[in-house]
Amino acid sequence: MATTIKDIAKKCGVGVSTVSRAINNHPDINPETRAKVMKVIRETGFVPNDSARFLKRTETNSVALLVKGITNPFFTKMIRIMEEYIQEKDYATILRHVDHTEDEVVVAESLIKERRLKGIVFLGGAFTHDEKALRALGVPFIFATIGNMEKIQASVKAAKKSGFAYANIAVDDVEEAKKAVNYLIGEGHHRIGIVTEGMNVPSVGQLRLKGYREALEENGLPYSEDLVYEVKEGIDHYTMPNGYQAAQALMRKNPDMTAIFCISDVLAFGACRAIIDEGRKIPDDISVVGYDGIEEGEYYNPRLTTVRQPVDQMAENAIEFLFCMIEKKRKPENMTMSAELVIRESSGAAKKG
Amino acid sequence: MATTIKDIAKKCGVGVSTVSRAINNHPDINPETRAKVMKVIRETGFVPNDSARFLKRTETNSVALLVKGITNPFFTKMIRIMEEYIQEKDYATILRHVDHTEDEVVVAESLIKERRLKGIVFLGGAFTHDEKALRALGVPFIFATIGNMEKIQASVKAAKKSGFAYANIAVDDVEEAKKAVNYLIGEGHHRIGIVTEGMNVPSVGQLRLKGYREALEENGLPYSEDLVYEVKEGIDHYTMPNGYQAAQALMRKNPDMTAIFCISDVLAFGACRAIIDEGRKIPDDISVVGYDGIEEGEYYNPRLTTVRQPVDQMAENAIEFLFCMIEKKRKPENMTMSAELVIRESSGAAKKG
Repeated sequence: MATTIKDIAKKCGVGVSTVSRAINNHPDINPETRAKVMKVIRETGFVPNDSARFLKRTETNSVALLVKGITNPFFTKMIRIMEEYIQEKDYATILRHVDHTEDEVVVAESLIKERRLKGIVFLGGAFTHDEKALRALGVPFIFATIGNMEKIQASVKAAKKSGFAYANIAVDDVEEAKKAVNYLIGEGHHRIGIVTEGMNVPSVGQLRLKGYREALEENGLPYSEDLVYEVKEGIDHYTMPNGYQAAQALMRKNPDMTAIFCISDVLAFGACRAIIDEGRKIPDDISVVGYDGIEEGEYYNPRLTTVRQPVDQMAENAIEFLFCMIEKKRKPENMTMSAELVIRESSGAAKKG
Repeated sequence: MATTIKDIAKKCGVGVSTVSRAINNHPDINPETRAKVMKVIRETGFVPNDSARFLKRTETNSVALLVKGITNPFFTKMIRIMEEYIQEKDYATILRHVDHTEDEVVVAESLIKERRLKGIVFLGGAFTHDEKALRALGVPFIFATIGNMEKIQASVKAAKKSGFAYANIAVDDVEEAKKAVNYLIGEGHHRIGIVTEGMNVPSVGQLRLKGYREALEENGLPYSEDLVYEVKEGIDHYTMPNGYQAAQALMRKNPDMTAIFCISDVLAFGACRAIIDEGRKIPDDISVVGYDGIEEGEYYNPRLTTVRQPVDQMAENAIEFLFCMIEKKRKPENMTMSAELVIRESSGAAKKG
């Protein structure tokens, strides 16, 4: 005789609904109880298909993650953490990547036709958006890692004028970039290249470039456009091929350059590979500093010096805050997190000229 | 007077519905037309909020991607390609990661309560599943990169017996792994370590280990358990820390080992770093070969020799086939793709003893 869900419940000493919750990965069950139930299910060879098949089909509420630069491992980690949280809330995660040529708010508008969509997280992308378009979204949303609002003067002014604020979580990109470049200057580097995003994109690239400029100014070093490389359009901005091309071009133009600051780790890996291929040594000939602090940096050869963003904490705070807004417990806020300069093998003292 | 959608349509010489399609990123619009419309929208400062706000809210059909090992960049690429395809079909992509301790079919059962879910892609994970549970899913599904069915003897037999077949797309993991190990043997390596998944998991790890064994046998080399390292439980299997620990342990146990074959590139990066930290040279002291062919391998130092899976093509074929099944144009099929051994800097001739 086939095992039924009742047999399983009896064997486990729990109710049928608990077995059902275990089978359906319902969040509202003690993990140990679930493990026990699943063990018995496996042992008995019970197949919970009927219970699943005849479940009342419903509609699930969902949260959308809109990601610019979806193949950047920095976002992969954040997506995973957020997806886990959303799942615990019994919501579905809708994933949508946004091309560098698309406006993420326009993309969001196409999603909100879906009436079960209860909130949106914008990961990466531009930091200026049309206020009316944002207001029209009609669901709570939060921007993550698009830059610190206090630093985005124009937007802040606009927000103050209209009284419209939106939730935002990021590190202080200007300050953190400045710290990294100050560190390089402290190591004796005076000709420091930077690999950043195109200036036509109002994104963290601009903020990090601002930090770079401020560090130079504070140290009485000249700012030279020859040392600024904007990544190529047409491919995803934060990619290794872009970093590779950037370092090649910077080396060609600036034979006296002793360091490169890349606004993402992925760009930095590409830059490192180009420097190595040129037969030059890291950090003896050229120091490289990245930004983000992804795990790959610890395993690269050389290990990458980087500005580590608190990725886990940022992802958790962002998604938690979004749910607080969905549940009407919080109003939009601007949150700033701290990053950390992690000095590893890819940077060191400048070669004496 | 505020610009209206009619003004935009007039300016562009198109109908209002075309403007609406452009705004909503509808797939059914010529990209040039869309670019033109969006340009005019930007120039006029038109905010398409009202059109969005009063859109009839509907429910969107969706396809779920269930991913085991979601932070593996190999899957990131596949997810992006599939998401793009799903989006073009005007479906939503539901993303759900599956822990290594979870059964992906059980996870799928919890998703099918959602009545708008029209199909499922299983990425990675186990290659044996309960037939009844699969039948009960009630929507078309496809397995991608879980291993080649022809090679999974037991499952094939079971499928034949019951007449139940399911869609599957993968490379021939046994053959491709065998090719990689044969290459190493041809380079004079006789003591070759392997980093693979735990044997309690019926996954590609087993198939790739089988290929490794067969290559040794065909070449009259002994199989030694000392050279087989199963990745640690408790953290994601396909990670750099796992590869790092693996190479450390293999080097300690086998001072005469001259090569390591890792069943994923991510594991191989960790292994490389451990070898370098041990003060040993790649490939002079130890050759390293990975599996997957992710972009990072081209930029690692040394560049990684690997078994490159046709990731773009596999992702496209899988999602296209799923939609054919959703649209009832195709029945489940088993598809095998070819991989390619890409020889780069991390491998070479064995050191003479």
